[in-house]
Amino acid sequence: TAAAAEAEPKKRCLWFEEELEEDLRWVFGVSKILHTGVSEFQDIELVESGPFGKVLILDGKLQSAEADEFVYHESIVHPALLYHSNPKSVFIMGGGEGSTAREALRHRSVEEVVMCDIDEEVVNFCRKHLTVNAEAFRSNRLELVINCARAELENRTEQFDIIIGDLADPVAGGPCYQLYTKSFYEHVLKPRLKDGGILVTQGGPAGILTHTEVYSSIYNTLRQTFKYVVPYAAHVPSYADTWGWIMASDQPIPAISAEETNLRIKQRINGELKFLDGQTLSATHALNKHVRNSLAAERHVYTEETARFIHGHGTASKN
Amino acid sequence: TAAAAEAEPKKRCLWFEEELEEDLRWVFGVSKILHTGVSEFQDIELVESGPFGKVLILDGKLQSAEADEFVYHESIVHPALLYHSNPKSVFIMGGGEGSTAREALRHRSVEEVVMCDIDEEVVNFCRKHLTVNAEAFRSNRLELVINCARAELENRTEQFDIIIGDLADPVAGGPCYQLYTKSFYEHVLKPRLKDGGILVTQGGPAGILTHTEVYSSIYNTLRQTFKYVVPYAAHVPSYADTWGWIMASDQPIPAISAEETNLRIKQRINGELKFLDGQTLSATHALNKHVRNSLAAERHVYTEETARFIHGHGTASKN
Amino acid sequence: TAAAAEAEPKKRCLWFEEELEEDLRWVFGVSKILHTGVSEFQDIELVESGPFGKVLILDGKLQSAEADEFVYHESIVHPALLYHSNPKSVFIMGGGEGSTAREALRHRSVEEVVMCDIDEEVVNFCRKHLTVNAEAFRSNRLELVINCARAELENRTEQFDIIIGDLADPVAGGPCYQLYTKSFYEHVLKPRLKDGGILVTQGGPAGILTHTEVYSSIYNTLRQTFKYVVPYAAHVPSYADTWGWIMASDQPIPAISAEETNLRIKQRINGELKFLDGQTLSATHALNKHVRNSLAAERHVYTEETARFIHGHGTASKN
Amino acid sequence: TAAAAEAEPKKRCLWFEEELEEDLRWVFGVSKILHTGVSEFQDIELVESGPFGKVLILDGKLQSAEADEFVYHESIVHPALLYHSNPKSVFIMGGGEGSTAREALRHRSVEEVVMCDIDEEVVNFCRKHLTVNAEAFRSNRLELVINCARAELENRTEQFDIIIGDLADPVAGGPCYQLYTKSFYEHVLKPRLKDGGILVTQGGPAGILTHTEVYSSIYNTLRQTFKYVVPYAAHVPSYADTWGWIMASDQPIPAISAEETNLRIKQRINGELKFLDGQTLSATHALNKHVRNSLAAERHVYTEETARFIHGHGTASKN
Repeated sequence: TAAAAEAEPKKRCLWFEEELEEDLRWVFGVSKILHTGVSEFQDIELVESGPFGKVLILDGKLQSAEADEFVYHESIVHPALLYHSNPKSVFIMGGGEGSTAREALRHRSVEEVVMCDIDEEVVNFCRKHLTVNAEAFRSNRLELVINCARAELENRTEQFDIIIGDLADPVAGGPCYQLYTKSFYEHVLKPRLKDGGILVTQGGPAGILTHTEVYSSIYNTLRQTFKYVVPYAAHVPSYADTWGWIMASDQPIPAISAEETNLRIKQRINGELKFLDGQTLSATHALNKHVRNSLAAERHVYTEETARFIHGHGTASKN
Repeated sequence: TAAAAEAEPKKRCLWFEEELEEDLRWVFGVSKILHTGVSEFQDIELVESGPFGKVLILDGKLQSAEADEFVYHESIVHPALLYHSNPKSVFIMGGGEGSTAREALRHRSVEEVVMCDIDEEVVNFCRKHLTVNAEAFRSNRLELVINCARAELENRTEQFDIIIGDLADPVAGGPCYQLYTKSFYEHVLKPRLKDGGILVTQGGPAGILTHTEVYSSIYNTLRQTFKYVVPYAAHVPSYADTWGWIMASDQPIPAISAEETNLRIKQRINGELKFLDGQTLSATHALNKHVRNSLAAERHVYTEETARFIHGHGTASKN
Repeated sequence: TAAAAEAEPKKRCLWFEEELEEDLRWVFGVSKILHTGVSEFQDIELVESGPFGKVLILDGKLQSAEADEFVYHESIVHPALLYHSNPKSVFIMGGGEGSTAREALRHRSVEEVVMCDIDEEVVNFCRKHLTVNAEAFRSNRLELVINCARAELENRTEQFDIIIGDLADPVAGGPCYQLYTKSFYEHVLKPRLKDGGILVTQGGPAGILTHTEVYSSIYNTLRQTFKYVVPYAAHVPSYADTWGWIMASDQPIPAISAEETNLRIKQRINGELKFLDGQTLSATHALNKHVRNSLAAERHVYTEETARFIHGHGTASKN
Repeated sequence: TAAAAEAEPKKRCLWFEEELEEDLRWVFGVSKILHTGVSEFQDIELVESGPFGKVLILDGKLQSAEADEFVYHESIVHPALLYHSNPKSVFIMGGGEGSTAREALRHRSVEEVVMCDIDEEVVNFCRKHLTVNAEAFRSNRLELVINCARAELENRTEQFDIIIGDLADPVAGGPCYQLYTKSFYEHVLKPRLKDGGILVTQGGPAGILTHTEVYSSIYNTLRQTFKYVVPYAAHVPSYADTWGWIMASDQPIPAISAEETNLRIKQRINGELKFLDGQTLSATHALNKHVRNSLAAERHVYTEETARFIHGHGTASKN
């Protein structure tokens, strides 16, 4: 008996809201809570969102969205591995979601990926629910360690071709900010890089209005620690911002031509990349004038005592 | 290693938003989605809310909140049963949540409660998840029928002491508005009331600013159909409004003193009421001057052709 | 050339949001900012809202809405003046908006209204922009004082028939909470009441879920200070809650019949009341069972040391 | 007497909300409404925002923010003028805000800028309130015309070196979509371009998730009309997206080296650019693989009959 034809459309009633700044909110409709979990460190939620497909949320912050996680994860993994002549071993600090390991494992040269995340619950949650990473989690080239990345690197004697910092942003009260400090880079991380090895870390928001929150400072800190430092960035729609990464090494990271990049992608990586190719890669390196000048002028060095934090509550950590 | 002491408080990230009017929103934090379901008629959600405890949501509209559902359900059930001299049989139109049946079954005189809801999924969902109503759902005095209340009343030959309209508000495209019309009251419902029987129906928002949406019209429609009509109202916090109900009968519904009310409550009802007592009952009857005048002046009669609707999408129905 | 017929409706883009609780928001569309001001104590805004007409906002909290301010202001003024045998002098603590004075001046017996608000800017803002109160502000029976109500009462030797506390709610960091304490009532206020004089104060939210924030405590504090104390409440839609007021006196405040109330209204008050009449007045006195029991059980006394606060930032004050 | 030290911080109470998609909202705090206006076509607001400084809002859509308008306006103006060998005359379709004219007038070679906007109120509003454009509005090289850009171009016989489409996005019901069609480009616009002339138009959102709304279609439409078409894009933070522009010409638009770009900027443009330089310009041209492939595959041609629209209400137009 329902006069359905006259019905107004259903109103969206459940919304995810992330406070990007004190007075800036990013709000999207949620049609379904798929799975929830709680760990010692954070709340975990996988929701079906309107605009971004499945979205992984840690402690109220969007971590990764089905619709565009390929931008972040291709960007954090492939450049360093493509610049390296023959990457065989990869150490991932954090990365519990599994997507970073997934991308690293696509490189045929890679024989070993160590993924070291502090939060076992997040790892188990993602292994179980993120089907896109299921194969990576099952790979016999993956060594999964539940530990603090700092402690793990201090205890290992092994060295790696590539170390990836797929960590939560430095926020007040979070443990991760210690994995962005000069002393950590110098005394803990660098000794674990092989000759010719490259560190790449996520660097937080790198937009016109946000790159001085932490990105420029992490950049400058790496510049104090490594001989060669290469910042790059790309807009990640679900983050409502341009995101930044930084490569660092004591050996040169020479620019390669778009053609050479495309060739290496073809030769080294299984399957098709969606975001990166030669042209895209060089574009991500070309920060705009405003941000580039700002990075060049940055004098802040990230230490335990001088840490800068981005807006957000403080307990989350993927490490 | 977390410097937890410095951490900012966690931000609430999941919010329920109900659009009360086109430009009025009622928004509360949701800490957990407890259960979800879908029926032929509507989406069903049980969530843990910040301010109102467990909240039942049907098609994006808050139906019932743990923190104050007692106000609504005591108000829709007990007045009519207390005014009636000896209520033995109760027919509930809608009421799939089970709370209305629960309150009716508290009356020792009641031998039979028929609860007739069109939505089997909602009934099963609530039977399973609303523990507060579990005992009511198991009562052998409860007859549960899945049917359209109109069809069910048309088919029954039995008569009832009390008929309760615990229905969704009339919204455009919803089936329920047909259970508020003059012809329904006259030709379908009234024949099913025993001598001395009382109809009570929920009547939608009855606040200073909202009582003319549908409440005054339902009131006037009943006034055209029954000899005695008694409107009453109470503020239900989780509805962000004062709510209205209306009793109607062809026999007088004489006011009873507060003392007599208290006595009947004690004699007839199992357990303690939280909201209603003699003093409260008479206060709910005393609509304020503005609303009372407005009801007295209402000329609109609710028919299939002249239906008024409250704001909201249209498919929801508890009937 | 615009294909206007195909156009979607304009989206509301400006919203007022009040955080009622940490996880409860009351949000309405704003179509126009009419006037803004800043005082030593607070920000002042008069906006045209969608659902409530013109709305006065002090420091981000809705103070008064064109659509239903009559509920609050009739309630805070008329009961005490109607219960008093012959009110001639009225002292208003706060009330800078002018509406409380406006209602008091409607009483023919009233010869003098002293309105004492600490915030000159708010007073000037409202005098200029709230046309509904223009006549009251011009009345030669109104004495307007810019001062702290406490200091003013301490300095005056005069006594009043009625003292009205039209103050901001007690919030952390605000000055007003000192005007809700036992010592203030006892040592400052009571000496300024004439024989048979009545104090009435607003008491904050008095809803089923909110009356224990401050209302029950203010009630109990007055009960420790005055021989006769009468709480009453009404739902104010734009506040998204039931609101509470309390009368107190050392002489009895005897209930009067609805007929007698109506008679006094007719004899004493100019013009027509919109909310209150005999029946409404007694209904506002009849708090529901749950709130009544809760008030009776309250043991907290409001002192400088034990102050309770309601949610909200702290600088606002109408006093 | 205020215990200010204990006060909680003030809550933001006024928010601007833009519905980017049906279930995606961009929300920022507004501290002050600076100026408001109404035109025949749209509502106009200039507000002081928390995160973006002064923000110009037309019909509820953010048009331009003080904090990052330089990204949009440098991008829409300078590339075409830098690629052109000697731009003397510029025609701006829309652009009533004045910022596009401001940037064009910085080119020393430019002798004449015609700015043709349909909305006189917007133009007057911006001339009066956007001090950053005051000098441009006063320039004797600027000819300001209030007219529909299509009609104006149809009536003129003059030709231009550069035509800039600084128009509102095509939205349902808006007039602007007719300024994105193949027939307009072919029959109205192209005849008004000089030999070697370049058209540049804004193209709407060009992000990973949004570039197929209208950007790819406008690109393909231009490709059907002009021999050489160059899309480029940049992230504009206050738009919460990457934005796209497209250059089109019947003469080649040859890439120039970063060094050459920097040289031309120095030689031709007064003052310092904030966003663009040689490296940035080539990066904006390098669309990422996903978007580039998508543009290449686009077959939709924009005609009056096949118009695509982006989400948003429909009356706004800067033309």
